[in-house]
Amino acid sequence: MNAAVRAVVRTALGLGMRAQGVRRAYEGLARGDFTDLGARDVGGIIQRGGTVLQTARFPEFAKPEVQQEALRQLKAHGVDALVAIGGDGTMRGAAALHRLGFPVVGIPASIDNDVFGTDMSIGVDTALNTIVEAIDKLRDTAASHQRVFIVETMGRDCGHLALMSGVISGAEMTLIPEMETSAEEVAVAISQAHARGKTHAIVVVAEGARLAANALKEKLDGMNTGFESRVTILGHVQRGGSPSAWDRLIAARFGVIAVERLARGESGVMVGLQAREIIATELEVVSKRKRETDLEFYRMARMLAK
Amino acid sequence: MNAAVRAVVRTALGLGMRAQGVRRAYEGLARGDFTDLGARDVGGIIQRGGTVLQTARFPEFAKPEVQQEALRQLKAHGVDALVAIGGDGTMRGAAALHRLGFPVVGIPASIDNDVFGTDMSIGVDTALNTIVEAIDKLRDTAASHQRVFIVETMGRDCGHLALMSGVISGAEMTLIPEMETSAEEVAVAISQAHARGKTHAIVVVAEGARLAANALKEKLDGMNTGFESRVTILGHVQRGGSPSAWDRLIAARFGVIAVERLARGESGVMVGLQAREIIATELEVVSKRKRETDLEFYRMARMLAK
Amino acid sequence: MNAAVRAVVRTALGLGMRAQGVRRAYEGLARGDFTDLGARDVGGIIQRGGTVLQTARFPEFAKPEVQQEALRQLKAHGVDALVAIGGDGTMRGAAALHRLGFPVVGIPASIDNDVFGTDMSIGVDTALNTIVEAIDKLRDTAASHQRVFIVETMGRDCGHLALMSGVISGAEMTLIPEMETSAEEVAVAISQAHARGKTHAIVVVAEGARLAANALKEKLDGMNTGFESRVTILGHVQRGGSPSAWDRLIAARFGVIAVERLARGESGVMVGLQAREIIATELEVVSKRKRETDLEFYRMARMLAK
Amino acid sequence: MNAAVRAVVRTALGLGMRAQGVRRAYEGLARGDFTDLGARDVGGIIQRGGTVLQTARFPEFAKPEVQQEALRQLKAHGVDALVAIGGDGTMRGAAALHRLGFPVVGIPASIDNDVFGTDMSIGVDTALNTIVEAIDKLRDTAASHQRVFIVETMGRDCGHLALMSGVISGAEMTLIPEMETSAEEVAVAISQAHARGKTHAIVVVAEGARLAANALKEKLDGMNTGFESRVTILGHVQRGGSPSAWDRLIAARFGVIAVERLARGESGVMVGLQAREIIATELEVVSKRKRETDLEFYRMARMLAK
Repeated sequence: MNAAVRAVVRTALGLGMRAQGVRRAYEGLARGDFTDLGARDVGGIIQRGGTVLQTARFPEFAKPEVQQEALRQLKAHGVDALVAIGGDGTMRGAAALHRLGFPVVGIPASIDNDVFGTDMSIGVDTALNTIVEAIDKLRDTAASHQRVFIVETMGRDCGHLALMSGVISGAEMTLIPEMETSAEEVAVAISQAHARGKTHAIVVVAEGARLAANALKEKLDGMNTGFESRVTILGHVQRGGSPSAWDRLIAARFGVIAVERLARGESGVMVGLQAREIIATELEVVSKRKRETDLEFYRMARMLAK
Repeated sequence: MNAAVRAVVRTALGLGMRAQGVRRAYEGLARGDFTDLGARDVGGIIQRGGTVLQTARFPEFAKPEVQQEALRQLKAHGVDALVAIGGDGTMRGAAALHRLGFPVVGIPASIDNDVFGTDMSIGVDTALNTIVEAIDKLRDTAASHQRVFIVETMGRDCGHLALMSGVISGAEMTLIPEMETSAEEVAVAISQAHARGKTHAIVVVAEGARLAANALKEKLDGMNTGFESRVTILGHVQRGGSPSAWDRLIAARFGVIAVERLARGESGVMVGLQAREIIATELEVVSKRKRETDLEFYRMARMLAK
Repeated sequence: MNAAVRAVVRTALGLGMRAQGVRRAYEGLARGDFTDLGARDVGGIIQRGGTVLQTARFPEFAKPEVQQEALRQLKAHGVDALVAIGGDGTMRGAAALHRLGFPVVGIPASIDNDVFGTDMSIGVDTALNTIVEAIDKLRDTAASHQRVFIVETMGRDCGHLALMSGVISGAEMTLIPEMETSAEEVAVAISQAHARGKTHAIVVVAEGARLAANALKEKLDGMNTGFESRVTILGHVQRGGSPSAWDRLIAARFGVIAVERLARGESGVMVGLQAREIIATELEVVSKRKRETDLEFYRMARMLAK
Repeated sequence: MNAAVRAVVRTALGLGMRAQGVRRAYEGLARGDFTDLGARDVGGIIQRGGTVLQTARFPEFAKPEVQQEALRQLKAHGVDALVAIGGDGTMRGAAALHRLGFPVVGIPASIDNDVFGTDMSIGVDTALNTIVEAIDKLRDTAASHQRVFIVETMGRDCGHLALMSGVISGAEMTLIPEMETSAEEVAVAISQAHARGKTHAIVVVAEGARLAANALKEKLDGMNTGFESRVTILGHVQRGGSPSAWDRLIAARFGVIAVERLARGESGVMVGLQAREIIATELEVVSKRKRETDLEFYRMARMLAK
């Protein structure tokens, strides 16, 4: 999220505005925990995981009186518009402030990638790289041991992270909350892999899958798959780490555009990334043209370097 | 590219076809350097950089007689359709084969990202992550030394890699082949950074920029910017490394779709990724809905796991 | 281990010997699963995790008749001496062969670092780096969440990996098989950290600690520490990954020396690394002299490059 | 260095002392740029590259009057003893203060590893891992391109980093300041590699080698080695990055012992790591005993966690 904070601050300063950060999300908003952010305050933060502004869960923000208190704090601190960065809980809070007449634009950030209105939320790509690196390491020793490695990923209600990890790492089976999969089905897939000559198998299980990683292990160990099973639970390791290039890039783009839209008087929207469709282009066209570098990024780079 | 090779082979096998690999690109095509590829041959290759099929430059493929020889080899080996993975040179060769009536579909792979018809080629994301990690390391010691770090990235004719690295890593200045930038302009940007209190500066220079990294260093050292300069040339380090999650994902998607299109009788096209636009969605909508996991990937994961 | 295999093969070839690899450890030794290894066969393997020769558990090797069968296979394949790479089980097998009169030298490789006779076994440093990176990622999000992260490391009987991870990552508490620690003691350490203003805590737990990671979590959640707890189980991820510089270096040194000792007619020993003592030297001496590069490594580099 | 700073501070606090940091090394010492350091100030810094106290070159510290000024500042700030962390320049300054009667203990930190009195300085292992990762990436694409990759490492007067990188990464040739090597010798080594069937070659060149990386490239390109050459210059990338497990461990040990020695009234020494000898132990002994976990580290972990 730090890359988004940096882009928001530098774009705002570039447009002649002042920028303040709200610490600990809506909790800080309600309590007036604000801090001035200058260009230097957001220097050297892009490469850090987490967020310099810290986060907090604050269900109390659903209460109208807490929202009114937040509005009072925003006015008291001379704030005219808000950029809200986070997942669907954050967007619900942002929608509430917008309904109360306060200008707000949202930026999606959630490793579950379950925010509506964008193909990718900030954090997903970094988490995927962390998972994929872990599975690569499992494979190194897997070959000689006749083992099933069961890898639990985050995702209580949403299987995106598990599913993408499964595709990317070539898992034999992926269990997600959106689909019912039995231990028997997993055993069949593994046994087939064994029969095809595979010396190991990878099963990716979302945290919220109906059959949990540990439960799956117990069931598999009671069957005759030809493999021993081992469980890896990455847990919050998936939330950290220096952000990937892709995450830094969409965070910067979201940050710039969120502020520009607020500056144009827009409110009540969330920026997002749309339509990563696979298309086909005639080879005749492809082989005669060059993709042009999007020089819009040049302008963006200059602005953010300030 | 290995993830694309794996997806092509497994999709083909899944559709009841046989798969062969051509070693050393068009050179191997003209010489008949073919090898059978089964499901197990492409197991355990996704995480490796480079390509198991090797590559080669082969300008002779522009000659009609060499293309005819390639067609003979394809027929002699019982090949009915070709998937060509590579950059614009590869696509020119593919277009030639298509014009000669041979079914071919292209998949873009080039760290320069200059292939027309796709927003991202395979390899770009991995290269960007490598560059960004290197720049993160430069920053660690940068703070205390009053230094300008000049980082040369690949890109002879195309500034994409340099430009994206610049945005992502917050470079003070980025020099690309598509834009003229003088050492004086760089010196001004650095001096302004110095005046704003920055203790270091990053300048990213594409290999093909009109002012090369070493030449820029010499010029800057002759000016009075308040900084000493140091050059980092990553070179072919950018081409290697275990592929990022994103690269593995688009490679898998390209591979599956390329084969499916050939199976449907299409030819003469390159698959690509389109339209990563930034959009805005009403917060009211966002906060009431959940992005659904695209279960199409589930099918894809199962197929590729075979 | 691949770096050790490479060093053994190239040193042997450099001394005019032939080299063979035994696949799947003692199981392969008893079954005669041998393969010729030339200089090219061990090119490009240093950076890979695991071992190209594969491993296997083979308790049957304790039987005298199986050991005799191994001796027959060694003779049948014209093998005069053996380098055995592995943990304490491997060394027991090697000692047995030596007692039977077959020349053998051992090289210690075990991420538990419990092999007697060496300060570091191959694999420990790589595993430590993997654990430390994971804990770094946990810290990124830890700050804002009032959480205890419980990280389970490998080590059934030996707490080395857990203990070193604890020192290196600044864990609040480390639980190892060699020491009894109660959940109450952990709770006290965490509560004190909380009282000192810490927003999170890390507890490292060896796999074989008397209080397991999951059990500790349950107990902590029932106490009032001011923190929620989360478990990360890295599992076999710790065994994989491209080896660290240090592991490659000791593996190369062990490999060279093991073969040289066999060539000199020695047998029945294991090579090891000794005495990493912290010493003190007069500043007067330090400030007047330079540490000299050990040019012995130059000779070694040349030999291994063959 | 941050891990050493943390260990020094926490050990001092544990012994009932107060701790102050000196910013920008001897320059800050002479100017009185001191800052109080509590247990929390050194929390969360271990994983960061560089040093939170910043560094600076300050040749003026060789002047007696500047040293006297430093002594005055130390007294004015109530400092009784100093821990000096750095390379040989730092140790010369520390020796001078000791001669003037001020209690000082040194800790070696230098990626060149040329400090006398220790086998490893802080920073060397991290730099080696960075170099080795870069060379691994070069190899990925090397296979198919008939190329020599020339990699320049740091080391103006000292070839340690280059030599170790060469051993570790299996370079065909390593050029260091301590040895004269001609382009012809390099060409011979490469040509032999070519003749042996190698498709690529790696040459590691220390910054201070008599034949520089760029000069070597030009000479090789004029010869007929069968390879094209490419240069990679990592530069200051080698100085940054999250420290390796090993570096964090020796930094912690050095920090603890440096303070303990000062507390016992010692001065004028530098702590260091000694004698990483390769030894041999009887397999009979090895196979009957277990290496015991050094529980001294347990005490250390507890103390540093405070």
